[in-house]
Amino acid sequence: MTAAAPGGAGTPRRRGRPARTDADSGPGARERILAAARAEFAARGYDRASIRAIAKGAGVDPALVHHYYGPKEQIFAAAIETDFAPAREAPEIIQAGGPDTLGERLTRFILGVWEDPATREQLLAIVRSAVANETAAAVFRDLVTSRLMTRVAGELDVPDAELRSELAAAHLVGVAMLRYVIKVEPLASADVEQVVAMVAPAVQRHLAGDAHA
Amino acid sequence: MTAAAPGGAGTPRRRGRPARTDADSGPGARERILAAARAEFAARGYDRASIRAIAKGAGVDPALVHHYYGPKEQIFAAAIETDFAPAREAPEIIQAGGPDTLGERLTRFILGVWEDPATREQLLAIVRSAVANETAAAVFRDLVTSRLMTRVAGELDVPDAELRSELAAAHLVGVAMLRYVIKVEPLASADVEQVVAMVAPAVQRHLAGDAHA
Repeated sequence: MTAAAPGGAGTPRRRGRPARTDADSGPGARERILAAARAEFAARGYDRASIRAIAKGAGVDPALVHHYYGPKEQIFAAAIETDFAPAREAPEIIQAGGPDTLGERLTRFILGVWEDPATREQLLAIVRSAVANETAAAVFRDLVTSRLMTRVAGELDVPDAELRSELAAAHLVGVAMLRYVIKVEPLASADVEQVVAMVAPAVQRHLAGDAHA
Repeated sequence: MTAAAPGGAGTPRRRGRPARTDADSGPGARERILAAARAEFAARGYDRASIRAIAKGAGVDPALVHHYYGPKEQIFAAAIETDFAPAREAPEIIQAGGPDTLGERLTRFILGVWEDPATREQLLAIVRSAVANETAAAVFRDLVTSRLMTRVAGELDVPDAELRSELAAAHLVGVAMLRYVIKVEPLASADVEQVVAMVAPAVQRHLAGDAHA
């Protein structure tokens, strides 16, 4: 995802630009840029986020942002990749038990990520960008597909495994939307364990391929 | 929802404002304002939509927009209320058959609304506003709850009828998000009848209260 080459210290100077402090090339510049990018995308959404603001937030020259991460689309991809818990932690959730309880594990995990206010804000920022902008949607889609959907589908020994894993995910996405974003009652205030108990069987039926009687 | 009184022709003149043409008070001013509001919210989202731009689009004085519809929140409510097919047509969908096929009717109806590019764009505009702004989310929530959820729940003779109808709706919301907004494949390109066949039983189980074995 990080398409640009790392580049040695001091290399990314651009013609005509005044030399900056060595914050540009100091250790941690890449991490500072990613952190600033996450903050900028979260605050302003994909459409309105600017490379200049990301650079300012990281204390580096805008050219360095482009040098390390390429165009805005790739900065967004890199920023959400390190941030998107469902993609990052999916492998261990999937491997934590057998296929009979995969629906419950996924349901509990996804709702757990949304229950935590910190990760909820991160997810909400990503969802806002993806809903508002086609490019951001494509980046999000590729991440979710490669990191989550394909791995879940790989666990299934049923026809249409990819489609089924997406329908299972769709159920969880919709519950998150209505419970945490739109906040429809009584769903928004229901005990999370009750929600897990009511949703996990539907998710499991999609995964197991026996939901379509 | 239209909280402001209609007011007679010519009444909404404000002190110090120059008199406008009689477009202000002409027949259809209310409808023109609503149409302009829908266009403005769709194009710019709730946060960035302005009363001034709505008034300009309708060819009326901004004061008239406020006079007829109140603050931005209420204009948004009025604009989406006439526009939101799932709320408008829900009663007849619900009444079109027995409870055993309610899940299939709702699934077919909601996916049908999203399949139509014109209504899809309207829904997408509403979802973008609701995801980006808490006030818009509250307006959307109240509309969906009063027009759709409560009516579906009223058809159910099971415990937790409201929660169940919301989980059923959540599944449909999530399918719409992944298929039409994020466009995850193979779901985005799957035949709509295949999607109905795979999703309707899960929706029906939520509604019937036997999904939670």
